[in-house]
Amino acid sequence: MRFRTALRSLLVVATLTSPLAADEGMWLLNHPPTAALKSTYGFEPTSAWLEHVQKSAVRFSTGGSGSIISKDGLVMTNHHVGSDVLAALSTAEHNLLDEGFRAAKREEEPRCPDLALDVLWSIEDVTARVQGAAKGAADDAAASAARLAAIAAIEAEAEAAASKDTKAATTGTAMKAEVVTLYQGGQYHLYRYRRYTDVRLVFAPEQAIAYFGGDADNFEYPRYNLDCCFFRIYENNKPLAAEHFLTWSDKGAAAEELVFVVGHPGRTQRLFTNAHLEFLRDVELPWALAKSWREEMKLAAFAGRSAENARVALEDAQGIANGRKARTGLIEGLQDPTVMAAKKSDEDRMRTAIAAKPELASLGAAWDRVAAAQAVHRTIYERRQLLEDGWRGPVLARIARQIVRLTEESTKPNAERLREYADARRDTIERSLFSPEPIHDALEIEWMAIRLGFLAERLGASDPLVVTLLDGKSPRARAEQVIRGTTLRDIAARKALVAGGADAVKASKDPMIAFMRALDPAARAVRQRYEQEVEAVERSAYADIAKAEFATQGDSTYPDATFTLRLAYGPVRGWTEAGSEVPPFTNYAGLYRRADERHGERDFALPKRWIDGCQALSKDVPFNFVCTADIIGGNSGSPVINRAGEVVGLIFDGNIQSLVGDVLYDGSVNRAVAVDARGMIEAFEKIYGAGELVREIRGGR
Amino acid sequence: MRFRTALRSLLVVATLTSPLAADEGMWLLNHPPTAALKSTYGFEPTSAWLEHVQKSAVRFSTGGSGSIISKDGLVMTNHHVGSDVLAALSTAEHNLLDEGFRAAKREEEPRCPDLALDVLWSIEDVTARVQGAAKGAADDAAASAARLAAIAAIEAEAEAAASKDTKAATTGTAMKAEVVTLYQGGQYHLYRYRRYTDVRLVFAPEQAIAYFGGDADNFEYPRYNLDCCFFRIYENNKPLAAEHFLTWSDKGAAAEELVFVVGHPGRTQRLFTNAHLEFLRDVELPWALAKSWREEMKLAAFAGRSAENARVALEDAQGIANGRKARTGLIEGLQDPTVMAAKKSDEDRMRTAIAAKPELASLGAAWDRVAAAQAVHRTIYERRQLLEDGWRGPVLARIARQIVRLTEESTKPNAERLREYADARRDTIERSLFSPEPIHDALEIEWMAIRLGFLAERLGASDPLVVTLLDGKSPRARAEQVIRGTTLRDIAARKALVAGGADAVKASKDPMIAFMRALDPAARAVRQRYEQEVEAVERSAYADIAKAEFATQGDSTYPDATFTLRLAYGPVRGWTEAGSEVPPFTNYAGLYRRADERHGERDFALPKRWIDGCQALSKDVPFNFVCTADIIGGNSGSPVINRAGEVVGLIFDGNIQSLVGDVLYDGSVNRAVAVDARGMIEAFEKIYGAGELVREIRGGR
Repeated sequence: MRFRTALRSLLVVATLTSPLAADEGMWLLNHPPTAALKSTYGFEPTSAWLEHVQKSAVRFSTGGSGSIISKDGLVMTNHHVGSDVLAALSTAEHNLLDEGFRAAKREEEPRCPDLALDVLWSIEDVTARVQGAAKGAADDAAASAARLAAIAAIEAEAEAAASKDTKAATTGTAMKAEVVTLYQGGQYHLYRYRRYTDVRLVFAPEQAIAYFGGDADNFEYPRYNLDCCFFRIYENNKPLAAEHFLTWSDKGAAAEELVFVVGHPGRTQRLFTNAHLEFLRDVELPWALAKSWREEMKLAAFAGRSAENARVALEDAQGIANGRKARTGLIEGLQDPTVMAAKKSDEDRMRTAIAAKPELASLGAAWDRVAAAQAVHRTIYERRQLLEDGWRGPVLARIARQIVRLTEESTKPNAERLREYADARRDTIERSLFSPEPIHDALEIEWMAIRLGFLAERLGASDPLVVTLLDGKSPRARAEQVIRGTTLRDIAARKALVAGGADAVKASKDPMIAFMRALDPAARAVRQRYEQEVEAVERSAYADIAKAEFATQGDSTYPDATFTLRLAYGPVRGWTEAGSEVPPFTNYAGLYRRADERHGERDFALPKRWIDGCQALSKDVPFNFVCTADIIGGNSGSPVINRAGEVVGLIFDGNIQSLVGDVLYDGSVNRAVAVDARGMIEAFEKIYGAGELVREIRGGR
Repeated sequence: MRFRTALRSLLVVATLTSPLAADEGMWLLNHPPTAALKSTYGFEPTSAWLEHVQKSAVRFSTGGSGSIISKDGLVMTNHHVGSDVLAALSTAEHNLLDEGFRAAKREEEPRCPDLALDVLWSIEDVTARVQGAAKGAADDAAASAARLAAIAAIEAEAEAAASKDTKAATTGTAMKAEVVTLYQGGQYHLYRYRRYTDVRLVFAPEQAIAYFGGDADNFEYPRYNLDCCFFRIYENNKPLAAEHFLTWSDKGAAAEELVFVVGHPGRTQRLFTNAHLEFLRDVELPWALAKSWREEMKLAAFAGRSAENARVALEDAQGIANGRKARTGLIEGLQDPTVMAAKKSDEDRMRTAIAAKPELASLGAAWDRVAAAQAVHRTIYERRQLLEDGWRGPVLARIARQIVRLTEESTKPNAERLREYADARRDTIERSLFSPEPIHDALEIEWMAIRLGFLAERLGASDPLVVTLLDGKSPRARAEQVIRGTTLRDIAARKALVAGGADAVKASKDPMIAFMRALDPAARAVRQRYEQEVEAVERSAYADIAKAEFATQGDSTYPDATFTLRLAYGPVRGWTEAGSEVPPFTNYAGLYRRADERHGERDFALPKRWIDGCQALSKDVPFNFVCTADIIGGNSGSPVINRAGEVVGLIFDGNIQSLVGDVLYDGSVNRAVAVDARGMIEAFEKIYGAGELVREIRGGR
């Protein structure tokens, strides 16, 4: 209901104003919105300011953002970004999600398996080289192959150069290179990162307060969540001596104060053509939602069978629920005919403008090429999801696929491999492949049965591939067989297969390896069709569209999100909903009121510490707040900073009205939701007695 | 896991024995399994015995079974059969599902809106007349139309004759006629029912004990559910003076004792051909499950928003969850390749036998015709479900469709109408259409948004029909508009439209009527294609298959379930699972153990009365038990009786292994689950102090 109102008001804005709404944008750090910041807010970020915030920001390999906030490498992020790690460090006796965690001293900070943090160190525009490589290619697929080969070469050269770097040699910290595709193919930038892999856990509150209100309150506002988690980067087995880190503001932010969000928005589709949006609305989102509903129900039934099942399934279940709620908001927006009509009219205007300029007219075909790619994609999307992209869930299946593919791809030249097996990404694959993360047999069987059952439901149980994969058994029986029979629980067994190479894998009798060997040709075939007939066409067509847009509007715009560092901005500000004001701040009094209102519901039950500590807390301290900064999934854990670059909050969510943010931004109601810096300090002191954490956060003051 | 084991063992049984497994069958009351009962159990039911149990059994219009168990028309069924009524009689202040209900005296028994109970009074074979009507028809569709016209005529004649019946004239109790299609079209029987429409609520326990263990324990065993509910039939405003009623056994049943289940199994597919089963496995079940998962998640999110939402959505949510769990069991069975192989081999054997007999050989084409019908059905199934069959949920949409169709169909001759609008079914439509059942606006909007969103997801938001139905709005906005704008909440408005006829409906500006008018042509079109190109072909082909089966095996078999009265039988008996024995009885000690084991979970929280009353209960009294009788959904509420026709239990569920029962029965593990007669009396006396109910049940003893 509220959502619809939001979209209505948005359309007025979109029609009356120039291309970008106020405060819109996920800006590149090397291309900040200087003019808008100066004219609207009288603030001009210096290059030193930009470099400082860039080098204080971190990207989590588990899919989230964070920031370095002390000279000793203390890292702040969200609880829900750290929760994978918390689950991995938990045991049947100590569930860190339930209990929270606090290291009494630095020596007791446990190392996190598999976690890697990236800090962006430099950006270089390599568009000319990447696009130049495709000049004269016979068709889109050949052009795409040429670009991918150029990207692999650029990344490999950058890593080779970095390995000669003195700093890297002394610290052992790797420099990672990544060519980022921007504007859906309009530009290519080389990003060089410092990658830290010795990361340890410092502090986490209980999930009951970090995710207070559960699925019911997720994406809603007012909110009352202490959604934070603290880690520490180590280098040479010592806390990182951070060159850049953010300082803390004890004052916090005031209503209407300009703030900034520095983080890694994951993916948006704002530059999508209308045909591409229709694909998103009618194919991709319905498919993803149907999969979510199925998985949530299956995992709920699994969790209902025992307390241990419930524990091991919780992380996966919450992740799926979060995606389901976000996609529900997005599809509801796209199914509003007025939203699509507005997008359509923007596109028509652009195409008319191009058609009128003889030097640009030839670019006009790009929109039709994107539409043609969608038509192909419709015919292969389900199969692509089922065979290639949809195998999240069973850890052992993921490992088996990585072994089968890594050994096969390693026999090919770097430039010809599946891109995730390029040399520059080897450490990412190995970190995942040789991860000691706990494997829960019951959950693995359930996930494998979920996957196999879905294959049989969608392709039909008589489909030849399904018949081969089930090997004469029901989905559940086959799941049990491969999970119980595999040796891949043992990291040494994985290493032995990788060391043995393609021949060892071919000869392996491991049932999970055999399963993935049987699946792989079909999965590769549909992936290849997608890459050649859909993705390659899109890259090339969107490069033309970007050219047309730069030519007509200048490059005063931002590329779609790519899980790389961006700057967003805007004031701390509430909004108007159904005629009443939603104020920007909540406080601790509101938390206890809400807990009381929903008394008896599991997701609203406060941890014991918070019930016992109620009197100690000052109830008027701000707890959560909202601002207009333009963010999206992946921004979780981003710091909110003021003009001085001081931390005033910690992003953890968007409001319901922000869920359509994948495709459009409406500054009148789209809000980013953050934990207030003052609320964190109050809780650390009064509830957790975590004096040493507070002292470090405050820079020893 | 347990399920797979079950199916394995079954295959051995199916291969080694003659067509029917021991205790298999849902038998017609006019064609009981006399030989099997006599040879295996030494019991021969007399025609008086059969008539007595037939006329003591009742069918609930809400979709369930029951029995008359006192001379004053007391009716016993399940709580989950009565729960629609309990929800309808609840208010925001008194939730009868939570609190239970007990009428202190007869004058305080509240009348149940819309409830009708049918008692089967006579059966007549009309196969010759129905099939004869189709002789010489040009094609299957014409044959089907001729058969349907014959059926409408037979029903109308039977009702006209019944109206002259003296008994009916004095009591006001209507005789209803229904031609039942048996053996998928192999036989047609005319059933005459007494229909009682003044039914009042007598007693219900709290849902927390009736559905103890919730979704987690549903279809599981051991079980501990007091899943019972008592009503009373009134005639002329006085308790029914029952001609037939079942007496009660204080002794209950012993392990291995032969018992009978008399009830109304809803639907099975045991006679389906292999191609038809593949359609069920690959199209119908995946579709139905996808719909369930979506609806369960949507309703859960709706319920999470407030306690009132949770209350009004509970009934719908539980019904969907139950269907989802049942279908999950069935599809897991059908996806086991060994199950389909066994079915295939049965079919091949039969086809070979027929091909060998010249006088039967022409019948062999019937299997191919069923397969051809499935091929057509695959192309229209989704559309049929979306437009015609899948509109469950929003009450106001159902009412609008009934008004649009009733007024249109009433302009046609009886034999040419959509079958549910035939004269003989007018009272059923009117009971539903003019029902005072409560309508919850928030839930109606949610359901309407669920339906409209699903249409847009499956057909695409640019589909012309979707565009028409959404009328320029998002699914949620359109749902709000039609629900808030309709006048159909008001029963007088519905009556006025029906009285005004087709012209009034055409002129109506009511947004829900307008919506259904816009949907109706497309819905009728796909229904017509289904009826002519799928159903008509199936009816005619299955008639041939039945002929072939009667010719080769005699008629020593039972027809698929049709929600009409059947007799099932078998001993009280546990089973062996993963090497250990599951005993047939549970007791009250087990209930309290289970509650303790799952302490803190909502679905395992005992009602206050049961916590307070724990000491008073004798812990060794049997609470639930299992027997081998062959039942299926629709049998809920069936009495379990002994050879003397006395009540020893009350069916409420099947075990997990019974879920594949739609397509096959395995007596080694398939079990029906019942509340024990002794357990009921113990609870009524010790927990509820319901002495007068116990006295009546015991026949005044």
